Amino acid sequence: MFENKDTSKTPIAQLGEFGLIDHLAKNFEISSKTTVKGIGDDAAVLAPEKGKQLVVTTDMLVEGVHFDLSYMPLKHLGYKAVMVNLSDVYAMNATAQQITVSIAVSNRFPVEAMEELYSGIQTAAALYKVDVVGGDTTSSTSGLVISITAIGTATPEKIAYRTGAKENDLLVVTGDLGAAYLGLQVLEREKQVYKVNPNSQPDLEKYTYLIERQLKPEARKDIGGLLAELEVQPTSMIDISDGLSSEIIHICKSSAVGCNLYEDKIPLDPQVISACEEFNLDSTTIALSGGEDYELLFTVSTEDFPKIKANPNLTVIGHITKESEGMHLITRANTKIPLIARGWNAMEESE
Amino acid sequence: MFENKDTSKTPIAQLGEFGLIDHLAKNFEISSKTTVKGIGDDAAVLAPEKGKQLVVTTDMLVEGVHFDLSYMPLKHLGYKAVMVNLSDVYAMNATAQQITVSIAVSNRFPVEAMEELYSGIQTAAALYKVDVVGGDTTSSTSGLVISITAIGTATPEKIAYRTGAKENDLLVVTGDLGAAYLGLQVLEREKQVYKVNPNSQPDLEKYTYLIERQLKPEARKDIGGLLAELEVQPTSMIDISDGLSSEIIHICKSSAVGCNLYEDKIPLDPQVISACEEFNLDSTTIALSGGEDYELLFTVSTEDFPKIKANPNLTVIGHITKESEGMHLITRANTKIPLIARGWNAMEESE
Repeated sequence: MFENKDTSKTPIAQLGEFGLIDHLAKNFEISSKTTVKGIGDDAAVLAPEKGKQLVVTTDMLVEGVHFDLSYMPLKHLGYKAVMVNLSDVYAMNATAQQITVSIAVSNRFPVEAMEELYSGIQTAAALYKVDVVGGDTTSSTSGLVISITAIGTATPEKIAYRTGAKENDLLVVTGDLGAAYLGLQVLEREKQVYKVNPNSQPDLEKYTYLIERQLKPEARKDIGGLLAELEVQPTSMIDISDGLSSEIIHICKSSAVGCNLYEDKIPLDPQVISACEEFNLDSTTIALSGGEDYELLFTVSTEDFPKIKANPNLTVIGHITKESEGMHLITRANTKIPLIARGWNAMEESE
Repeated sequence: MFENKDTSKTPIAQLGEFGLIDHLAKNFEISSKTTVKGIGDDAAVLAPEKGKQLVVTTDMLVEGVHFDLSYMPLKHLGYKAVMVNLSDVYAMNATAQQITVSIAVSNRFPVEAMEELYSGIQTAAALYKVDVVGGDTTSSTSGLVISITAIGTATPEKIAYRTGAKENDLLVVTGDLGAAYLGLQVLEREKQVYKVNPNSQPDLEKYTYLIERQLKPEARKDIGGLLAELEVQPTSMIDISDGLSSEIIHICKSSAVGCNLYEDKIPLDPQVISACEEFNLDSTTIALSGGEDYELLFTVSTEDFPKIKANPNLTVIGHITKESEGMHLITRANTKIPLIARGWNAMEESE
């Protein structure tokens, strides 16, 4: 798909490594007042506001492992690579400020493909108000690798770690779960159909939400502001990249607590429910272990319940218990099942 | 060399991605007082000292492009990957504090190989007093990719940009140049010899310095402290990763100045001179365009000359001129030759 056979395309070698960086970086403007110097020196220079701490996170995306370019447009890939990192900043209850972007790319990609990728990165950076302050562009012997580091700031008392969940705290999730995983299933199925019949016209109308959640996820930049407005300080927080159960277990282990999670409280979009029926999948399993939702999971004191209960962005899905009580899912049938990292096998348990 | 055919080795899949991170990260301790939280949450948390700014830099190393595992031991590779990044921090006249390390690795590498790589990273981090505060470990479809981000701090008035060189300033370089490139030539030659005769016993005694500069470069952590001690604030600074001429041109273009560089002043190690004779290479060309020396190049006001002239770590190699005068090399024969980004072709000019 991206083989550089089209002679109207520009081989990367024509620009050279420096030329490519200059070419791609020329569109990046600095907007954060904490950025003193962006691209163009040995290092970027940042001036964090007085009294603020920094959060730093990094993620690497590898072609053939994290993305498939046969259905992931490069622009979307660039956008998503930024989201994956910003989500980790927001999961600390911090404000994202800067990113650096390193890319290794084989010469099968023309310059125009890199422009597509960078335009997605630029769109994400502009929308989420982060500066692209540095990076590296290099050749690779095969495939595409993207490594992004994101930096954010917050006052020390605002920063939410995984370690602060207390007995009786409420377990809260933003948005809804499972859609990104089902979007991937739909895209994989269409890829197989296309292989057999390249002229097929897929009707993806009823999967739009699922596909969008897979191809163009949005990190929850809004939640930090919302919680501040509601005057709620989460006692712990994490982003949901690997599925709800795995993230709940991270919080419980880090905080040395247990939990009860209620199956009937897990927020699901109607498209998730209908696609699960179609694919013969259990929607709870998908929500628990689907992954890539980039929603936030956090705990709050029960005193804060009145402040959050009416908010359409937030759903209370359970509560924290003593560590000795373990981590459990309370099913719709009111049975108590141990929560495991890679979800709960509905098939096994329903026997 | 690292094919995982040895059944006594542990396949990465046996630990899983989380297991591998936990396994590798367990040796990393936090020592910098600016590190609040290292590995183990969505992001690391840093608390820069009051009045300090941050510098952030990132570099990616790709197997088959930046390193060849047939002569680069994994431990050295880990060490060098850290040096490449710290060198950029020191080139800002800042103190390195933290790094994040992301690695994509194919399953041909056993866990033991990753341990080797990380032990090099850990050795470098301990020696240079930086904390490994985060990272990502993922599989790749082929080869090894290492992406490191380094963070440092400095007061705003200490930070040295590429943009501050002024007419008449002196051009100063640390250490000596060209050895890393020649080390690579020696290793490449031995690799070819080994291919023909695997039983050959190479005598590398007379190349020890060259090979060490290629396989185990040291970033100039000492120079920031030395300059502070001498009460010298560089007007501009850059690290020498791509060869002297390319870096001088970066400074001159960024500062809108010209320069005269004196061929007879370029510091060369005796091993560089003798290896150049053996390989029939021009030592000036090697110093100008060899690369990977990880020395620092900077400019100082002429008023500071008395403070630096006796220092064995520092060599004045030229001076800054008006932009309109251009960038030139003054040869031993006292001819003036325009400096070009990829060095100066001695063969052409000597005709």
